[in-house]
Amino acid sequence: MPDLLPSWRETPAKTSITEFIGAVTDPDSDAFVPEVDRVAVFDNDGTLSTENPYTQLAFALDRAAQLGKPTTPDELQAGGLPAVLELLKLTHGSITTDEFDAVVRAWIATARHPRFGRPYASMVYQPMIELLGLLDANGFACWIFSGGGVDFMRAWAPAVFGMPPHRIIGSAGSLTFQVGDAGPELLKGADLAVLDDGPQKPVSIHQSVGQRPIFAAGNTDGDLPMLQWTAGSPHRTVQLVIHHTDADREFAYDTDPVLGAGTEQLLAAASDGKWTVVDMAADWSTIYSPV
Amino acid sequence: MPDLLPSWRETPAKTSITEFIGAVTDPDSDAFVPEVDRVAVFDNDGTLSTENPYTQLAFALDRAAQLGKPTTPDELQAGGLPAVLELLKLTHGSITTDEFDAVVRAWIATARHPRFGRPYASMVYQPMIELLGLLDANGFACWIFSGGGVDFMRAWAPAVFGMPPHRIIGSAGSLTFQVGDAGPELLKGADLAVLDDGPQKPVSIHQSVGQRPIFAAGNTDGDLPMLQWTAGSPHRTVQLVIHHTDADREFAYDTDPVLGAGTEQLLAAASDGKWTVVDMAADWSTIYSPV
Repeated sequence: MPDLLPSWRETPAKTSITEFIGAVTDPDSDAFVPEVDRVAVFDNDGTLSTENPYTQLAFALDRAAQLGKPTTPDELQAGGLPAVLELLKLTHGSITTDEFDAVVRAWIATARHPRFGRPYASMVYQPMIELLGLLDANGFACWIFSGGGVDFMRAWAPAVFGMPPHRIIGSAGSLTFQVGDAGPELLKGADLAVLDDGPQKPVSIHQSVGQRPIFAAGNTDGDLPMLQWTAGSPHRTVQLVIHHTDADREFAYDTDPVLGAGTEQLLAAASDGKWTVVDMAADWSTIYSPV
Repeated sequence: MPDLLPSWRETPAKTSITEFIGAVTDPDSDAFVPEVDRVAVFDNDGTLSTENPYTQLAFALDRAAQLGKPTTPDELQAGGLPAVLELLKLTHGSITTDEFDAVVRAWIATARHPRFGRPYASMVYQPMIELLGLLDANGFACWIFSGGGVDFMRAWAPAVFGMPPHRIIGSAGSLTFQVGDAGPELLKGADLAVLDDGPQKPVSIHQSVGQRPIFAAGNTDGDLPMLQWTAGSPHRTVQLVIHHTDADREFAYDTDPVLGAGTEQLLAAASDGKWTVVDMAADWSTIYSPV
């Protein structure tokens, strides 16, 4: 059988994944899980892709400038969460879903990451792409539960992660249905109705999947409830913690450098050894695929 | 090719469905739609199943009695919407999702429809079950967008309609994630956070599917925005209006006898002949499958 995880070094992290998949897909194993119950959930920023800077924040800054109301990353950091919400309001609201989709697609086609010079849609981790493929090949349904905006994610992530739009869930503003000149449309509001982070993640999983996952991956304390919820399944499960340890090839940090999300609680929850901490520098032979 | 719609008489309603499916699945047709974009959406109560009484309301009345706070259908009708909300609060809130699921499964296994004496889960329309099967066989993803409660629906509808839980969306209360004595759990709140009816239906479709449907079926004015939204697709579409005309085999009404939802706007929207009105008495040879 070909190795579907070639970018994972032969370390305990890889073994914990392959042994789990072997057990839950083996009809003769006590740990066997029917295909219909093989649900896997992933955080996006920092788990599937680089979050420094947040892709969506880079978009918002470019769009604010385009709309004639520029702001800088420093101003944003100084202004904290209120400044971020104000920026999102300006750049994500008062636009139809169809128009917003077109704006994001145009941006993602041309914007480049400031340090690596790569398109943002290619700032995804090759080992995690391989993991999604391995799970898919073993009958899992993989879903993304992101703190990022769902409409933003769905404009580029389905092609990158090989996943239908409905499997990508994220934060969302209000929507208003109206019959406009061009026919029925959905207008995006300027508020933040659902912040898909922390305890909202298991809530969103219940609402959107309606089943408890048996595999979950995250990288900050905002993912802890999602991993706890998954660990509470009656089935055998995996909790994957992506630890940013590679300053050379990506970034090394325990506190997200932009919004300040920490990892203290998540690493503490993993410290009894039942969860799998992925050391990016040690466990991954490749970070990004060739562009 | 076998007729997958044997309970549909050979009338224009059936032809409008089969011609549409033939066109959008034919790669040589101008109307061809790739499989990934074949999304179909259905209302439940009155569209896929009998809504007199609402299955969920029958459950709520039985559960209220079980909880020592009985109320009667007449008291409920006299009390209007506030009385219904009070009943839902009592019977659907302050319980974990796992416990609620077990309670609904136990009820649906034994409760019987007052007029027909059948289990509620068998009060579904055989012609619509056949339609779901035909669409599925032609590469469609079928979803339910119900005004009924999502947790209530998902406890019985997946088996009945042959659909995974995530394709069943409905009204919902708030949920709270907590780590209780038995581990992580989701506690159902006593409020109604999302009423999945009227203009909320296209909003829910955007949030849950992320694609615009090309096939929609409903039966009251609360389904009109969902059908309008579908009709606005750039693809060829079908809007199916289920009209309750069969007092002998089911019920005949234009205004829902329990909650008072009308059909005036829906039938007006269909009056130009572009939408398909299904006359249950004339177009269906069978209403329910044999128990």
